[in-house]
Amino acid sequence: MTERFARRIPEPTVVRLPLYRRVLVELSSRAVTTVSSAELAAAAGVNAAKVRKDLSHLGTYGTPGTGYDVDFLLGQIRRELGLDSEWRVAIAGMGNLGHALARSQGFSGQGFSVVALLDVDPAKLGEVVAGVQVRHLTELPEVAAETCPSIGVIASPPGAAQDVCDRLVAVGIGAVLNFAPAIVTVPPHVLLRQVDFAVELQVLGFYLAHREAAEPRADMSRPAL
Amino acid sequence: MTERFARRIPEPTVVRLPLYRRVLVELSSRAVTTVSSAELAAAAGVNAAKVRKDLSHLGTYGTPGTGYDVDFLLGQIRRELGLDSEWRVAIAGMGNLGHALARSQGFSGQGFSVVALLDVDPAKLGEVVAGVQVRHLTELPEVAAETCPSIGVIASPPGAAQDVCDRLVAVGIGAVLNFAPAIVTVPPHVLLRQVDFAVELQVLGFYLAHREAAEPRADMSRPAL
Repeated sequence: MTERFARRIPEPTVVRLPLYRRVLVELSSRAVTTVSSAELAAAAGVNAAKVRKDLSHLGTYGTPGTGYDVDFLLGQIRRELGLDSEWRVAIAGMGNLGHALARSQGFSGQGFSVVALLDVDPAKLGEVVAGVQVRHLTELPEVAAETCPSIGVIASPPGAAQDVCDRLVAVGIGAVLNFAPAIVTVPPHVLLRQVDFAVELQVLGFYLAHREAAEPRADMSRPAL
Repeated sequence: MTERFARRIPEPTVVRLPLYRRVLVELSSRAVTTVSSAELAAAAGVNAAKVRKDLSHLGTYGTPGTGYDVDFLLGQIRRELGLDSEWRVAIAGMGNLGHALARSQGFSGQGFSVVALLDVDPAKLGEVVAGVQVRHLTELPEVAAETCPSIGVIASPPGAAQDVCDRLVAVGIGAVLNFAPAIVTVPPHVLLRQVDFAVELQVLGFYLAHREAAEPRADMSRPAL
């Protein structure tokens, strides 16, 4: 079977759509009706030309001098991101991170709902988090049959990540989000994205290191980094 | 004061360096001595040409037919990312997420150490997590003077995020990593990166939605997403 992932919108644009969406949700909640590409740009950390290019992929061009209609653009991005569907999420690994994810705003509402929580620790089984009972990982086939998750989230220790991933794939989950600091592999028909907190820290470290190198501590008005 | 952030290496490359580094660390631990651009590419989710372009920014070109020397490249990336320094990290917000971050591999070792933990909940104050005692957010000036953090991590509820951010900036922290699902602003001299779990889910939602649209459910050999 050949997968045909959407190629029309470049991935860097796809990744920025949720950032634009976040700004638009905030503006909409304040009853702001229009937004300029410059405002969207500032919030997403890109330039205004990039915003206009990104939104042109949605067939949206805004009005010169006025900008974009907030609610119209929000609806377009929402549709494009598939948030009119409700994607059902299973979280495997109910340590602190699993708990944080299960309770996070991003994982409930906004097109997603957490339907299954899994762990192997007897102390955690049966606990109810965000309205969902924690079940044993070995019960995943039954849990998946009952709850039909589309997205599996790995929040396990790194050593268990590949096993957890294989189990998620085995029950037909089509997309995996891996938070464990371990490289996991999936078959070609499964989508995989990796979230690694260390990556973000390392990017900050890069800029701090190069800033320090560029500034020979002559400026004492600010505490040394 | 004009900040001169490093401009030599494009940001998309900077963001991929930690991904290459993760692969190299794993290869090095298995005593593998060389790696091809194709192998690095597969693990970082880009193509081999992109890997070679990225690494050329470090002045590294590999050997045709052999690839890159794992330990040499690891050292170069490590230096480039500033991981030879030890960046001191303060985490504000000790709910489940703060706990998970404080205990995560990425936040200790590898060039980073967690030196300060802050919260406002009396029940959490005094608790010791990963060897560091949780102090009250209002004590941040004293805590910062004692521990000199360079990087501040916001793991608070969204409503408190800007206040937490302002307090981190006020004590001279140069880089902020925001995990709260809220837009925060910093002065121009402060680095800011946002981590939003919902963004990753929404990107998966995009590809799932467009895959569903491209595949009219003719293939019943795999459970419907």
